[in-house]
Amino acid sequence: MGEPNSLEILFNPKSIAIVGASRNPSTPNYNLLANLVKLQFPGKLYPVNPNVQEIDGMKVYPSLRNIEGEIDMVVSSVPAPATLDVIKDCVEKRVKVLVIVSGGFSEVGRDGRKAQEEIALLLKQAGIRAIGPNCLSPINTSNNLVIGFDPHEKLNRGSTSFILQSGFYEPRLEWIFWDLNLGVSKLIDLGNKIDINEVDALEYLGSDSNTRVIAIHLESIAGDSRRFFDLLKETSKEKPIVVLKSGRTQAGVAAVSSHTGAIVKGSPIVFDTALAQAGVVRAYTLEEFFDFAKIFEFLTPLKLTGNRIAIACLSGGEGAIVTDMCQERGFSLAKVSSETNVKLQEVGPPWKIPPNPFDIGVSGQFHPMEVYRAFFEAMTEDANVDCIAVQLPTFRNVSLPDNILRVFLEPIFKARSKKPIAVWLMEENQRYRTPIQFLEASRIPVYPTADRAIKALSALYRYTSMRTE
Amino acid sequence: MGEPNSLEILFNPKSIAIVGASRNPSTPNYNLLANLVKLQFPGKLYPVNPNVQEIDGMKVYPSLRNIEGEIDMVVSSVPAPATLDVIKDCVEKRVKVLVIVSGGFSEVGRDGRKAQEEIALLLKQAGIRAIGPNCLSPINTSNNLVIGFDPHEKLNRGSTSFILQSGFYEPRLEWIFWDLNLGVSKLIDLGNKIDINEVDALEYLGSDSNTRVIAIHLESIAGDSRRFFDLLKETSKEKPIVVLKSGRTQAGVAAVSSHTGAIVKGSPIVFDTALAQAGVVRAYTLEEFFDFAKIFEFLTPLKLTGNRIAIACLSGGEGAIVTDMCQERGFSLAKVSSETNVKLQEVGPPWKIPPNPFDIGVSGQFHPMEVYRAFFEAMTEDANVDCIAVQLPTFRNVSLPDNILRVFLEPIFKARSKKPIAVWLMEENQRYRTPIQFLEASRIPVYPTADRAIKALSALYRYTSMRTE
Repeated sequence: MGEPNSLEILFNPKSIAIVGASRNPSTPNYNLLANLVKLQFPGKLYPVNPNVQEIDGMKVYPSLRNIEGEIDMVVSSVPAPATLDVIKDCVEKRVKVLVIVSGGFSEVGRDGRKAQEEIALLLKQAGIRAIGPNCLSPINTSNNLVIGFDPHEKLNRGSTSFILQSGFYEPRLEWIFWDLNLGVSKLIDLGNKIDINEVDALEYLGSDSNTRVIAIHLESIAGDSRRFFDLLKETSKEKPIVVLKSGRTQAGVAAVSSHTGAIVKGSPIVFDTALAQAGVVRAYTLEEFFDFAKIFEFLTPLKLTGNRIAIACLSGGEGAIVTDMCQERGFSLAKVSSETNVKLQEVGPPWKIPPNPFDIGVSGQFHPMEVYRAFFEAMTEDANVDCIAVQLPTFRNVSLPDNILRVFLEPIFKARSKKPIAVWLMEENQRYRTPIQFLEASRIPVYPTADRAIKALSALYRYTSMRTE
Repeated sequence: MGEPNSLEILFNPKSIAIVGASRNPSTPNYNLLANLVKLQFPGKLYPVNPNVQEIDGMKVYPSLRNIEGEIDMVVSSVPAPATLDVIKDCVEKRVKVLVIVSGGFSEVGRDGRKAQEEIALLLKQAGIRAIGPNCLSPINTSNNLVIGFDPHEKLNRGSTSFILQSGFYEPRLEWIFWDLNLGVSKLIDLGNKIDINEVDALEYLGSDSNTRVIAIHLESIAGDSRRFFDLLKETSKEKPIVVLKSGRTQAGVAAVSSHTGAIVKGSPIVFDTALAQAGVVRAYTLEEFFDFAKIFEFLTPLKLTGNRIAIACLSGGEGAIVTDMCQERGFSLAKVSSETNVKLQEVGPPWKIPPNPFDIGVSGQFHPMEVYRAFFEAMTEDANVDCIAVQLPTFRNVSLPDNILRVFLEPIFKARSKKPIAVWLMEENQRYRTPIQFLEASRIPVYPTADRAIKALSALYRYTSMRTE
């Protein structure tokens, strides 16, 4: 089965050959090479294309065989029928790991499946490990390794790693890095799983010291499913794992099968049970997938051992809406201490107001500058409160000077290391970049809506409670 | 119970007096008057404030009694203890309808409740209809009537009317108008419901010819609940009604009670059953509330009589994710005709690809310009397809010339009158304003995520199927 450290080479190759490299900046294949050059990937790069002599000043090789040095990794992005010859060259050159980007294999029917099996056999005989076909990866932010079709200028380094079975992430990569503000360590898109599968990937990331959170998009299990679930169980003790499983419904299974040519084994119910027993957090939409990864990335190692939540809204109406939401997602509204009650009453109106949900809008009319401070100070010190969710003021005037912003946001910064906090916005369009950047630079996750903030906190709570059961 | 046409006056007053008008532009009370001036509300305006002679060149009256002309509507925004004197002046001046903006009444406990009851009695004796206290409204876009604390420059006229029990909408109003792109007819925030309640409001909007869609946020029923559910049933035959009910959980009921001082009658289960029988569409989050209103506003009178959906995504992985989502929300993937299959195969790759979910990303590599056209032409003509959901391309280069945009978007325009279509974006941050504006100007609703697009279509389907059961 090849060398034991093949994924180590996949994420840290000393040299990469790009077969199918293009000199036309408007084609996807151009960026396969250009991203590595622009991002100053530290290894050696060999563009390969028989029809081109030079790309942006770099020498282009007519074939892999013409390269003199050793090649750790080959990225093959040529039409499916031309792929077999590339594989033969890889065997000849004793390449260590191969990424088959091209589609047109097992996902297109019988002929494609046959071609894929032929390639698989050749690779196995030669001991070359491979991902794909029909995949777009890997990414390793720590050495600026990005195999992608879109241009990428800068990577957001973090400790979340992804195991995917689709390139859906790539047009979202800038959004993941700079809007979601999610720092990534590694990403692997397994495609049709000709060789390296979810078991290999999870095994590697489970013991990867740069990976603290793992997010898995799964269409089918190609490896040993028992081993996979055991690994999930073992790994999730130390690292939160979010799983988005496609093919939960009959129509979904059919769609999965035409996407990667996989046969989905086992019924969805068996799958659900196994995943629940493995201690992973399930996501059912792409929003949940990314939102949950974000709360773990931002808040780990903070634990959420209880379900008593304190909330603050800018209106009483929204307070009641969010209260229902919290209750329906497994939280209970914290019954705060009398000290908290006194502290909040001091910044509130002359009449008695309830402390939870706290109407920060009403209180803000009386002590606009003190109300956030009082709320966060009281709630973080209150032993009856496990976590906090709060709506951000609208900051209509985004050019507010920093010191005004700080009056609102400083108390949140101070509270952040004590208890899990999630923030949501009045409007979903993230118009308020300045305060969001302030908060997220201090690892306080901001979500577009209350529903998504509460769901993310509840993912954190589920994760902690599965650990302590 | 006052004059039968009190809501007619509330939405179309010939004259308005603003008690508590302020000349300080940074205070909320300033905008109560300034919005009406700026928006050129066509009626007479009387600012009232004993401490001010003039606001922006307008004469200010020391009290309502000093106004010589008739006053249709009084908006009172003074501290709670000063409100009783305003009411007495209203009685004296034979005001027709009153809006009590101020809070500090039944929601603050026994004393507040007593004060509210005293006011209620006075108003009843004098035959003056009133909304509030603790409310912020009305809005009527057809005559530029907006009672609000935030500055509003321009209104988006449409046919959705809101009945609310919270001011949560106001900081979102610009977002509702220009990001959600929702055209509004009327809006009433009932507050503590001292007099005019949900029954009056629904009765009025049910027969209002400018209102085609009604969205109701409800904390409690203050009127005759039997009459209310009968009205819902009757009205929803002609006009889609979306209901967001707060106080679904025990904690939610408590939050509702401290918000407007209401006692929530009846158990949540009784409520759920009654709403289901009334043929309304339920929303459980603010996103659903606005998203569902939007699909009705955009697509009515298009009906969605079947649940067979056709979807197109930019990646096969997302196709499978959305397929599960559709199935779980009550849709079934349409089994398309052989004609459709042929048409899609023509723009697809050389191998056979499944028509639904259609991978527009793969096909776009072969015929980038024809693929959207072929998809929409085929699906709108296919008798096996009831509705269409499609992912918009990313348009990385937002400055794309109009004619390129049109190549992508024109086929959607052509299909729009034949079948319900919803579009979702690759990223939720609505970076692509130009194509969104193109689409929404033609009444094609665009949602930030697939989940929200599919849920909105499913609301449309539920509404139609409740009508035909």
